[in-house]
Parts: sequence; structure tokens; C-alpha cells
Amino acid sequence: MTPTHPTAPGFVEVVEIHGHIIDSLLLPKILDEILTRGGAFTIKDVHVGQRQEDPSHAHIEVRAPTAEKLRAILDAIHDHGAVPVEPKDCVITPADMDSAFPEGFYSTTNYRTQVRLNDEWVDVEDQEMDCGILVDAEGGAARCLPMTDVRVGDRIVVGRHGLRVFPADAAARQNLFEFMASPVSSEKPKGVTVREIAAAMRRTKEAGEKILAVLGPAVVHTGGRDYVARLIRGGFLDVLFAGNALATHDMELDLYGTSLGVSHQHGLPTEEGHEHHLRTINTVRRLGGVRQAVERGILKSGIMYECVKRKIPFLLAGSIRDDGPLPEVITDSLEAQRRMRELIHGVGFCLMVATMLHSIAVGNLLPAWVKVACVDINPATVTKLTDRGSVQTVGVVTDAEPFLRALTAELGL
Amino acid sequence: MTPTHPTAPGFVEVVEIHGHIIDSLLLPKILDEILTRGGAFTIKDVHVGQRQEDPSHAHIEVRAPTAEKLRAILDAIHDHGAVPVEPKDCVITPADMDSAFPEGFYSTTNYRTQVRLNDEWVDVEDQEMDCGILVDAEGGAARCLPMTDVRVGDRIVVGRHGLRVFPADAAARQNLFEFMASPVSSEKPKGVTVREIAAAMRRTKEAGEKILAVLGPAVVHTGGRDYVARLIRGGFLDVLFAGNALATHDMELDLYGTSLGVSHQHGLPTEEGHEHHLRTINTVRRLGGVRQAVERGILKSGIMYECVKRKIPFLLAGSIRDDGPLPEVITDSLEAQRRMRELIHGVGFCLMVATMLHSIAVGNLLPAWVKVACVDINPATVTKLTDRGSVQTVGVVTDAEPFLRALTAELGL
Amino acid sequence: MTPTHPTAPGFVEVVEIHGHIIDSLLLPKILDEILTRGGAFTIKDVHVGQRQEDPSHAHIEVRAPTAEKLRAILDAIHDHGAVPVEPKDCVITPADMDSAFPEGFYSTTNYRTQVRLNDEWVDVEDQEMDCGILVDAEGGAARCLPMTDVRVGDRIVVGRHGLRVFPADAAARQNLFEFMASPVSSEKPKGVTVREIAAAMRRTKEAGEKILAVLGPAVVHTGGRDYVARLIRGGFLDVLFAGNALATHDMELDLYGTSLGVSHQHGLPTEEGHEHHLRTINTVRRLGGVRQAVERGILKSGIMYECVKRKIPFLLAGSIRDDGPLPEVITDSLEAQRRMRELIHGVGFCLMVATMLHSIAVGNLLPAWVKVACVDINPATVTKLTDRGSVQTVGVVTDAEPFLRALTAELGL
Amino acid sequence: MTPTHPTAPGFVEVVEIHGHIIDSLLLPKILDEILTRGGAFTIKDVHVGQRQEDPSHAHIEVRAPTAEKLRAILDAIHDHGAVPVEPKDCVITPADMDSAFPEGFYSTTNYRTQVRLNDEWVDVEDQEMDCGILVDAEGGAARCLPMTDVRVGDRIVVGRHGLRVFPADAAARQNLFEFMASPVSSEKPKGVTVREIAAAMRRTKEAGEKILAVLGPAVVHTGGRDYVARLIRGGFLDVLFAGNALATHDMELDLYGTSLGVSHQHGLPTEEGHEHHLRTINTVRRLGGVRQAVERGILKSGIMYECVKRKIPFLLAGSIRDDGPLPEVITDSLEAQRRMRELIHGVGFCLMVATMLHSIAVGNLLPAWVKVACVDINPATVTKLTDRGSVQTVGVVTDAEPFLRALTAELGL
Repeated sequence: MTPTHPTAPGFVEVVEIHGHIIDSLLLPKILDEILTRGGAFTIKDVHVGQRQEDPSHAHIEVRAPTAEKLRAILDAIHDHGAVPVEPKDCVITPADMDSAFPEGFYSTTNYRTQVRLNDEWVDVEDQEMDCGILVDAEGGAARCLPMTDVRVGDRIVVGRHGLRVFPADAAARQNLFEFMASPVSSEKPKGVTVREIAAAMRRTKEAGEKILAVLGPAVVHTGGRDYVARLIRGGFLDVLFAGNALATHDMELDLYGTSLGVSHQHGLPTEEGHEHHLRTINTVRRLGGVRQAVERGILKSGIMYECVKRKIPFLLAGSIRDDGPLPEVITDSLEAQRRMRELIHGVGFCLMVATMLHSIAVGNLLPAWVKVACVDINPATVTKLTDRGSVQTVGVVTDAEPFLRALTAELGL
Repeated sequence: MTPTHPTAPGFVEVVEIHGHIIDSLLLPKILDEILTRGGAFTIKDVHVGQRQEDPSHAHIEVRAPTAEKLRAILDAIHDHGAVPVEPKDCVITPADMDSAFPEGFYSTTNYRTQVRLNDEWVDVEDQEMDCGILVDAEGGAARCLPMTDVRVGDRIVVGRHGLRVFPADAAARQNLFEFMASPVSSEKPKGVTVREIAAAMRRTKEAGEKILAVLGPAVVHTGGRDYVARLIRGGFLDVLFAGNALATHDMELDLYGTSLGVSHQHGLPTEEGHEHHLRTINTVRRLGGVRQAVERGILKSGIMYECVKRKIPFLLAGSIRDDGPLPEVITDSLEAQRRMRELIHGVGFCLMVATMLHSIAVGNLLPAWVKVACVDINPATVTKLTDRGSVQTVGVVTDAEPFLRALTAELGL
Repeated sequence: MTPTHPTAPGFVEVVEIHGHIIDSLLLPKILDEILTRGGAFTIKDVHVGQRQEDPSHAHIEVRAPTAEKLRAILDAIHDHGAVPVEPKDCVITPADMDSAFPEGFYSTTNYRTQVRLNDEWVDVEDQEMDCGILVDAEGGAARCLPMTDVRVGDRIVVGRHGLRVFPADAAARQNLFEFMASPVSSEKPKGVTVREIAAAMRRTKEAGEKILAVLGPAVVHTGGRDYVARLIRGGFLDVLFAGNALATHDMELDLYGTSLGVSHQHGLPTEEGHEHHLRTINTVRRLGGVRQAVERGILKSGIMYECVKRKIPFLLAGSIRDDGPLPEVITDSLEAQRRMRELIHGVGFCLMVATMLHSIAVGNLLPAWVKVACVDINPATVTKLTDRGSVQTVGVVTDAEPFLRALTAELGL
Repeated sequence: MTPTHPTAPGFVEVVEIHGHIIDSLLLPKILDEILTRGGAFTIKDVHVGQRQEDPSHAHIEVRAPTAEKLRAILDAIHDHGAVPVEPKDCVITPADMDSAFPEGFYSTTNYRTQVRLNDEWVDVEDQEMDCGILVDAEGGAARCLPMTDVRVGDRIVVGRHGLRVFPADAAARQNLFEFMASPVSSEKPKGVTVREIAAAMRRTKEAGEKILAVLGPAVVHTGGRDYVARLIRGGFLDVLFAGNALATHDMELDLYGTSLGVSHQHGLPTEEGHEHHLRTINTVRRLGGVRQAVERGILKSGIMYECVKRKIPFLLAGSIRDDGPLPEVITDSLEAQRRMRELIHGVGFCLMVATMLHSIAVGNLLPAWVKVACVDINPATVTKLTDRGSVQTVGVVTDAEPFLRALTAELGL
């Protein structure tokens, strides 16, 4: 390997990178980053894994004209997993106020992350993007902490010293062309994708992990409600996240035979049908809630019914466009996020269907190693999810009901 | 009925309208038109049909301050089916040149139209929008004539005298709310729509009419090819219109297991797969055409294969984005339109899936009484078709493969 | 006018309708409704207004085979403005519990509505769809009441007796073809629409009414921030509704020169740019809020800056996808709705740009006579708003920044 | 550099790659390809360019268990620019029939390509994707040849021996993050993009190259016609490609003040407006063509008028959805492609606005080094163009009229 510019000035640090650095594009990204920021490099050595599964590693000498520039380069390439070969412990600063981080706090990604505490690399728990890292009082453990949960005195990691991230470490090596050549498109063979998602759901259950479904009201409007009910009865849905609309229209269909006033018998709007959802909410409020509506025998089928019957935890998050809402709806968004974080524990697969708001909200909370399938007829929703840049999300541009029908058939339900 | 303005000036003509003039919105449109153009009216009488099936009719006295304004009003309301109660024969002018109409030619709609010849109302044949009307030498028959087919001396109808159109006459009266409240949307119960389309296809076959399919390449890309093959084998597809791409990718899938280079086994692009479609075209050109490829045993399955085997006429229309193209492709658009017009005879139902160009082209040629189902995952395509304003088109925003799968299941194929 | 079926059975009620019943399609809707529900009718008289501005009215005798069917028909046509000629007072039932209506409650529309109290027609205040109607203790006034605001003993209107709605009464008569032929489309002349919106904004200010803007983050991402700032400085924006994202990215652009990490200098993502929004939120939280950031001189330009400087009330409504959020964000959706209702008073025009969630939320709260312009590059957002069925919403499918640039130019800002 | 598997069997060939092999992702793609196809490699050396502009190069020893597998690997990596270090001349086979290539023909890309003839690397002329390569009789020159132009005896290149492609050679090195992090999105700062396109247009003119515009009818419908006229008058448009619709609606606007019947004065459909386009076509056909319409003073402004006045060559390609069409429309798609190929010579920049069909057709014909800006309000159109995988295309999701207005302003027109 040729030194690239031996005369470059003296602020120098050697970094190393591990993993699938060639085909995951990490190495080119890092080299580009160094050059872009006015630095120079010498590739000391590159060990390229021979087979798909084998990791590679490389040592790169980074040089910059000033200490400040070197610092900036090291910060920039740190996100790509390049860490100094002689690491120091991470830097910790106590929070000086509630509900905000100290300036310079380290902002997390959704990738697996470790901090160096007492010369040991320690996994950060509750991995989640756009958080800070809280180190416990003993300095032996660390976890992601949302901004609003900060309390004065919390020990918060600042800067990038003593931190390393594993961008794609947990991911099986993907065929590169899959990665490169798979823009989100409706023009893909759908049968294959459904098979893959069904297989992933089976593997998740076999691994003893939970399947989370995040559903929008179009699941009901398009006629997909019974297929979701089958998923629940078949044991392929362990947690449900949705909004007021999904739950309301699901129950409207039970009580009135319509969703948003459109008859599922003949597909046409029914007169006064636009009132059905509000009357449904009112009825459920009068009964005290969804559970009571089931227990009292008023609600006899559908997604919410099955959740109550099978004791599937469901979380209904409120939004400003809600009518009513239903008693179970958590109208405070911070409280809803808190509850979602709790319910996410143990989830190994997440199926998002026909909801941009809830999909992005949940995507923000999930660590990168939880597989996600995002299904929407609108390519923009799918793109927004898959743009998050991880290999975890399979985007499917298709229609909710036909997708769910094919999925349940594939799962033998 | 109250005279609306008894003092209005003296240029007067009484018109009549027949049909579903209340619920098809014709009457309000006509009244609005008269007022907008500076005229006035008295509703002489309105007979409203009692039941959904009963037509209504009305006589309206139209008044305008000048003869010219009266003429303009009568022209304007003529398109809505309002005709003078004492009609005259239509006015005929010989074409003064090839391939263009005389100025003032009557421009056709896709609705059933009659011209008055020798004091008799005669149906216009080959009804098609955006044509002229040619009256034969004997003056006993009339038909729609495309602009390029005009020859010097052709007897062309000009103006609106002695003409009447039947905007919704052939259409069964629709529930008004269906008409009003059904914007194109993906959020509709899909099972209902599929059932209705299947029923319409069955009725078409029972009536001894033909089913025309207009298909885009996404039918193949999404994996819907086998379902189309089943429709053909099941006798539910009598004519196929498509382009070079649909036919090429259908055969690429047979020869290489890919469409546009994407494997239908694992859903990923194959290396060199982007060459498959060109090699497919080249191979078929070397064999002489699709028919020869089937006869020589090279092509063994798929849409084109079934068309050849079942002697289903297919028309492949060329476009400037074509590679190759295949030998059967008609590269001249006027010639393609001519052939499409021939093949449309006897068609009672048209199923359009996943192609904006071909769908609009065929929509332009079909008379308003041929039922159309337009299926596309892109709402814009569906909207463009349904905006044509007739009640004939059912728009379905959904994905090609799942739609075709559900349709064949519904048809028991 | 011919009696339609003189032999129809004896349950009879005469209703009247006023307004633009022909061209607003009310009459055909009502007749269709009667027939659809198994009734029959005789049109006793129809007085058609002669000019665009003149209202029409009609008396219709409705007959049905049973009293129950007659009731159902009268209920159905009531929404279209048909009321019995001999009205009774509305029926009032006391609420039997908090936060839910009595069964059978009247569910409101966003059209102007009157209730009959002590033989007088009284306007319902705070008109809003999907509410109930609360009558005050003295029985002299009525207003819309959201479900969650119900308290035991509240006097709630049930059924449809003694109620009338004015579907399009406040609206100037539209050219019918505008109504019929204007599907939401990107293919419309944009200059005309911008001129119309600018004119409507000028008229609103001249009338002493307020302009409400509802903005999504794409306003900032596309580069439209300075144009909004000009609207504020020019006095064309009196109230701002938005979410955490709009405010955050607006301030991120001030603090970092990026929005969502994309530089507005060169249009490319900046490294570590994805952290900018979180650091912006943290900084503002540390300062105590947006106002403090302006007062302390940290925030120097942009939408939020201008709001603080010009004392424009802004409401930031929370959602479950929020990071942070900013201190001013109202995280409880019911509380946010309450505040929106307060701020809506006096609004005469609402400009919605690039946000589906907030646009629909605000659309739900506005009475039908507040003009709305909904601007989005995604036709689905615009369609969802305009589908609400009122003539109040002008939908514009276009890009946020270019629209705002053209609008400010048109307003001379 | 570590040998990756020294025990791999003996079918070996050393290949070399030049260019921006790290940051253009060529090296990782090639290594992945070798592994995927069952081969093994040793990276003999890698010389990485130090600065953005510096090319890199590498030698890689490729090994495979069979000669056939080695051949397959070499074929596969050839497209990424990897060529054997000891090249042989390309293999030439005479065409055995008209209008089809011999089996095994080399299928071209749109990248710069060289063939080895008599031990010399010779540039392939008329570079175009999805063609074959024709070597002249003397064996000293080569050019791309469309399938239908093949004549018996033509000397056609088969296989990949003696061929090399330069995937991104002509392209200035891009910031990697631009490449990685720029999915097509409407949420980008639009001012920056317009500035860049204007600058590219200026540079093109300064370089003495031509600017090609490819325009769809929405340019006219949205009101962008005058801005295109300004581009022509300002010398920023040298060649125009469009279809019948763009030209017709442009002239309809001149003759009737409408496009597709919608008035550009008040933005509403005009009655009988739907006939305007057909009458426009008929009028122009009667005059003999667009040129005659200008010369006779009938046509007084607009895009077609300026083209005739400034002697800008325009090509109107026909399609099956055309009415008429206009006399200048080339109805045969192969003839249209031929004429487009001629007019493309000397084009250095291509601006595509609001047309998927024509944009893709032209994109198929352009070599990769011609810069393209593709502007459409529908992300799908932009994605289809940019997915072609070259760095040449800038996709802009925005509205036609506002884009053109901003572009002319930026160009000072």
C-alpha cells in the first residue's frame, strides 16, 4: 500500500476499522471524509476478508495541518466506526440542569455503541438514535437517555473520545448489489418479498422474540382487518402500536359495517356514515374503554377485539387530528414515547403497515438490529423509513389489504 | 314552475332534454350554462322519473338578447344533451383537403350520438371522442372519422344543428353518492372492488362480448404474469393491447428468470441482468417473432405464450423509449391506432393495469358505454382516466400483482 | 310539475329547501336520497333563481310506507338542508356522564347550523365538525362542544328535530364547472392560483380578519423560510400553527446553516449535520425557550424569530415522532386542540403548506366559511383536505418554496 | 495487502482498474462480484489518489476453480471497468441477418467505451446504451449500432475481450455523501438546485456545446410557456424534443387562451374548451404545419413560435395517445429515434421537464457524460431517470412553472 502523501504535516493519529469495511462502503467513506476535511492518510494495512462472512480490518494513519482539523476529522470518521488504536476513556460531564444535555453531549445513533469506562469497552443499553448517553454512578454501565429525562447531576458522555459504533456489525453481509440497486419501487416481484417477511416473522418467533405491528387506519379501510386478526390468533403479533383512527375504524366496522362511513358490503359511502366513527368513539367512551366493550359483548370481532381476548398489549398514541379520542389513547406524546420504549423491549421484528407518522415515530425508537418491514402504497413513506440508512428496513410499496392477505396465506393462517 | 324573467328579450328557442337529467346533473349544468352566457330561461315542464331506472325529461325555453348569443347558448348546452324541439337536419360540408376537417367541424365526444339526416335520427357508428362525423354519400349513415383519415370530398358534419348526444343514457343510474363521494383513493375496501370487476367480466362473457386487457410491464415486474396467463386460459381475455416492454419482460422471465434483470426467485438484481431484455429481443428477432419463438419451443410460458397458443390477438404499440423492438411491434402510432380501432369492435369490458400511456390511448378510442376498470398503484394514472368524466370507469388504486391474484381467485381460476 | 306517484302510502311530510338548490346539486341529492330509501316524492313547487346570486327554493312532499322509513328519510335529507315546513323545537337531553354524549346525540358538520329554541331559530356558535351541540341553561344560546368537554348535566341536542344546516349558504355561487371539473391536479396554471390566494389574503386583512398559517418542515427544507418571514413582517400572517419540526429546523438553519443537516449554501448533507436539529433543540431548551433564544440574541432570523419579534402567537403541537421537543411544544393533543380552538377565533383565511397532519387537524376545527388554501407537492394531502366536501378549500399541488416565493412577490413583499 | 486465499485453484488472471475506484465504489463492487461468483482474489497493489481529483488504480489477481467460472467473473467485473492487464483484440463476428445481432453480442452501456483493434485502444463513437458495437471494414474505428440498423455482414463485437469501459471517468469526483445521501426528494433547498442548473447551462454555452430541452405538456398547463420562450430568446435552448401534446397546447394557448381547455386568465375550464386542442391541430394541419402557421401570422407567441423564429430545430415524436397529430409529428418511433440521435450530437446539457416518456427515451440515447437535469413534480419520474445509475443526472422534484420561472430569473432573462 502506497503512502499517499509522506510530506503531510505532523498532527497524526492512527485509527482502525473493523467489519465489512470494503463492501459496506465504510473504507471509501472514511477516506473521502479525511480528504474532504483537508487531511491526508496512509493506509497502513488492509486485511480483506475472503468470504462474505469474514470481516476485514484496516489501520489508517490520519494526518492534518492543525490539531483542530485532526480533531474534526477524527470526529467525522468516528461515526463510520473508525477509532483511535490507543483509546482513552470516554469523557463524562454532569448535567447542569433538568431536561437538557450539557453542551457538547454525544448524540447517539441507532447502531450498537460501546463506551470505554475504566479501560473497558462497555455496551450502551437501550440503544436509540438522537439520545444522549448516561453513565451510572459506579461508572460500570451506560444507557441511552432521551433529552427530557435528563436530571441535574446525571453523568452524560460528551465528545467522541472513548466511544465506538458498529455501523453494520450485527447485520449479515448483504449482497452489495442489493444495497446499491434497490431503490424503493412498486415495480418489484411482490411474492418474493412477502415470503421473506413471513420467513423473518417465523425466525423471530423461533428465536423467542416479539413481533411488533405498527398499523394505520388504511389497514381497516382497504379491508385488511380480518388478516390482522388472524395474525394475532396465529401468534404472529405480540405488540400493537397504532393511533385513535385504526382502533376506532376497526370497531366502527364491527358496530356499523363501515369504516369512515364506507360500507364493506358494497364499497360505497353510506348516508350518515360519516357519523359512525364519532358514534363509535362515544359508545366506547360510555362503556369505559375497549376492554369493557369486549367484556360487555358489544365488540365481537376485529383487531382490538383480538388484542383484548389474547391479552396482546396495545398502545394507542394520540395526535391533534383525533376525534374523541378513545379512552385508551395516550394523548401526551412524551408519555406515549415512554410507553413505546417499554413495550419495545424484546421485539425482534417490526411490521409497519400504512402509517407514516407512527412508522417514523417507532423507527426513531428502534435499535438498528431490529428488522423492520415497512409496507405502504405511497413510496414516500417507504423511502422516509429506508432512508434512515440502515440495512434493517425492507421497504415494500404495495397495498395494505392484498399484502396482509398474502402474508397470512404465506404463514398458513 | 315560475317563469324566471318574463321581460327577457325575444330571441327564443325551446329545447328538450331526456334522460336522468336531475341526478346526472344535466339540468343544473344546462341552467348554469344559460345564465353564465347571459341568457335566461323558463322551465316549461319537468317530468321527474320516480324510480332509479326511470328517465326524466324537461322542456326549457331559452332566451337571449341577440341571435348570436342564443346560438352560443344552444351550442353550449347541446353537449349536455339539450336539443331544439323542432330539429333540422345536420349541416354537411365537403372536406376541401386531405387529412384535415373543414373549419367549424363538429368535434365528437365518446357518448352515443345521433345526427339528423332526411328528418330521421341516425346513430353515429364507431363512436369515438375527438373525431369528426362522416356522412356517407347516400346520406343514410354516419360514422366517426379521425382527422388523418379525411379525404377531399368527404361529407363532414359542421356545427351542432341536427345533432344530439346521450351523455349517460346507456349507463345504469348510479347512486348519486357514489358519483359525488368517490374520489380516487387507495383507502377503499379492495375485496369489494375485485368482486365487482370479476362480476362485470362474467357478465361481459355471458353477453357474448369481448374482454380487452391493456397491460403495462409492472404486471410482469410485480409477479402478476401467471395470473394473466390464467385469465387467458380461463377465457377471460380476448384481446391484448400492450407495448414492447410488457412483451419483452414477459419473455425475459421465461428465458432468464428475471424481469428488467431482477430475479423472480430471490427478488434481487442479477449481474448482467440489465442485458437480459435486450438479448431477449434480439433472440426473438432472430427467430422472426413471438409466434415463431413459441412454435420453435423457445418460449414455453407466460402471457405472450398463452396469446399465441390460444390465438388471442395481441397488439404491441411502439414508443420512442423502446429498445429493439420486437418484430410484432407496430412502430407507427397512426397505424397502431388504426389496428386498435379494429380490435376494439365487440369489446364490452376493458381491464387496464399499470400503464398510463396505453390506458389513456385506449380510453381515447373507447365509446363511453364500454365499461373500464383502471388499476394502478399511482393515483395519478387512475385519476387521469376517471377524469374523462364518464361513469364508465372504475378506478382502483392498488398493486398489480396482488390485484391480479385476487381477481383470478375471485373468478375461480 | 308532475306528481311522481300519487298512489304512494300515507306517511307524509312536506319539507322545504332554500339556497342554490339546483346548481349546488342539493335538489338532485335530496330526490335521490328519498328514492334510495324507499320513499316517494312530489315536487310541490320549485322557484329557480334567475341570476347567479339568486337563491332558489322548493317544497317537496315526502312519502314513505312506514313512519320509521319517513323518519329515516327526513334524517337523511336533513343534512342537505331540507327541513320540515312546520318545525318543532330541538330535543335536548342532559348528559348522563362526563366526557361522552348521550346516545342519539346530534353530530355536527362544519356548516352553519341553527337550532330551534322556544320557536326561534338560533345560530350555533363555535361551529366545528364532529362535535355535539350544547344548549345553555336559559335555552337561549347553543354552541358546539367537543366530546371530552362534556360534563354531567350538560344539555345536549339529540336527533335532528328543530335543526337546520346551510350547506353552502355563505359561499358565493360557484361556476358549476369549476366545481365539477376541478380535480386536484398538478397540471393547473399556477400563476392564476397564486394571484387568487394573494387576493383572498388581501381581502381578509381589509375585512379586519386574521390569517392563520399552518406550516410543515418542508417549508424550511425547500428554502421557503425567508418568504414566510416576509409574510410576517408584511402583516400577512397573524397566527402560526406548526409542529416541533418546523420550529426546530427553522432555528437549525439560523444556528447551523442547515436544515435536517442539509446545507442551504450548497444543497448537500453536511457531516454530523444529522445532529444539528437535536443540538438546536438542546440549546433552546437550555435557554428556556424560543422567546429567550431571541431575547438573548442567539436566534437572529427566520420564522420563529419573526413571530417573537412581531408578537405573532404561535402554537407548536407535539407528536410522537418529535425529538426533544422544544419547550413551547404542547405535548398533550387535547390541550393543543383546545389552544387551537382559541386561536382560531377571528381567522378569515387559512394557508396550509406542506403538512398533512397539521392541515387535517386544523381543517377539522375550522367552520366551513373560513377560506382555506392547501398547498402540498403531494396530491394526496391536497385531496384529503378538499375531499371534506366544502367549497371552502382551494387545493394547490405545487412545491413549497416556489409557491411562497411567488406569493410574496404577488403581495409585493 | 494480504493474499486472501493462497490455496485457491489455478485459473488465474490479473486485472487492473483505474479511476476513482475507492470512492466511486468500483473496488468494493468488483471484490464482491468475485466472491459472489465463487472466485477468490488477491489485491496485488492499490494506489489511492490523495486528492479528490486524483485517480487511483489497483491490480487484482482473480482466481476461480474452473476456466468457465473465471470467464464469468471476468465478464461480470468488466462492466465495472476491470480489464485484464494483458489485453487481446476484441472478437468480431459478422452479422448473419438484418436487424438483429449475432448471439453473444456485446451489449453497450452509456459509459465511455474502448475496443482493442490491432493492439490499439480505440474509442467507440456514438456511445449509447443497449446497442451493439460495429467495427468498420478497415478495423480502425468502432461505433454503437442500434439493433434495427444491423445489416448482414456488419462486423459486430461479441463477448467482452478487448473491451474496456470507463464508468465514471469523465465525471468530476463527487463528494461521496452527495452520492450516498441524496435520494430523490421534494424536501431539498430548491434555490441551490436552480442556481446549479443555471450555472451548468452557462458553462455549456461557454464550452460551445448545445442545450437540449425535453418538455412535457405540463410545462404549458402550469403556465411555464413564456419562460421557455425566454430561454429560447436568451440563447439557452438549442434543440427541443417534445410530443404532439406540448406543441398543440402551446399553440392552443396562443389561439384560444386555454390549454386543455383551461383558461390561463382565470384558471377554470372553459365550456367547449375540450375541443380547443383538436381545433388547434386541425387549423395547423390546414395551414400545412407549425412553420406555416408562424409565417402566415396565425401563430404569434409561445414555444413553437420562438423555435420557428429562431430556427431552433424541434422534434415532435408521436405516440399512440396523440390526437391529430400535428404535421411535424414523426409518428414512427424508429424514425423518431433516428432523428433524435442526429440532433443529440453536440449536446452538452439536457433539461428535461415534466415528461416521463420523452425523458426516459432521451435518457436512453444520451452518453453518460452529458449532464442531465430532470425536473418533475412526480418523484417516480425523477427516480426512474436517476436510477439509471450514472452521476450525470440531477433530479429535482418540483413544479414545472415555478422551476422555469426561477431558472429564467437566475439566468437574468
